[in-house]
Amino acid sequence: MIKMNLIPIGEVVDCYPSRSDAPRQGAFGDRLCRIRIYEEFAEGLDGLERYDRLIILYWLHLSRRNVLKAKPPGSEEVRGVFSTRSPERPNPIGLAVVRLIEMSGSTLAVKGLDAVTGTPVIDIKPFLKDVDCRGVD
Amino acid sequence: MIKMNLIPIGEVVDCYPSRSDAPRQGAFGDRLCRIRIYEEFAEGLDGLERYDRLIILYWLHLSRRNVLKAKPPGSEEVRGVFSTRSPERPNPIGLAVVRLIEMSGSTLAVKGLDAVTGTPVIDIKPFLKDVDCRGVD
Repeated sequence: MIKMNLIPIGEVVDCYPSRSDAPRQGAFGDRLCRIRIYEEFAEGLDGLERYDRLIILYWLHLSRRNVLKAKPPGSEEVRGVFSTRSPERPNPIGLAVVRLIEMSGSTLAVKGLDAVTGTPVIDIKPFLKDVDCRGVD
Repeated sequence: MIKMNLIPIGEVVDCYPSRSDAPRQGAFGDRLCRIRIYEEFAEGLDGLERYDRLIILYWLHLSRRNVLKAKPPGSEEVRGVFSTRSPERPNPIGLAVVRLIEMSGSTLAVKGLDAVTGTPVIDIKPFLKDVDCRGVD
């Protein structure tokens, strides 16, 4: 079988102290969080400052992976995890569309992240309105 | 160091035959693609049919990982990979917002995917307009 191992490209160095402090969705919070990209990947950030929104993928290191059912917040209904944004899922990858507030060297200050401090970051992609919100009214 | 290994939850069973057939962004194509979720994860799909848009994360198994600079299509400018949607990046995770056309057992028919047939699928999340397109005009 193909091997799919991730490498951390950086980490969340300043955001929510614990899971219970984080909002249900980062987009609902207004906290300024910091992501530090490791020196060996810093070159990959070149050009990022032109975007005001980014997609951050991160590894939900505190989550269980052996969960296939979840109860969305505020719901009594148990559903499949793939129909929820629960952090507990077979591959615990978090996804947040954040606003890039400032880039200083290889540290990004962002708003809209719902990660705890210490979370490994695995990818950053520019958010493209015409692609990611295509046809959404 | 924390171990971050992914497991395939399914695969793209019918989409573009090769990378050169795929559009630059899946959202720009209209091909109906099929994703088969493996039996052991099928329970996680429960409730998915209520969403008309999904976020699919997949493993870009044909991409190089040792690339930190890329030229966006139609551009002459070389930039950091994190400021592009290039499939070649340290953690080659593809992300597409797709429309769910039909769900039949554990097979999903979707539009908007830019993957080649055989691509491992690693996560499915519901697309939430108020979260993922929050504040986008």
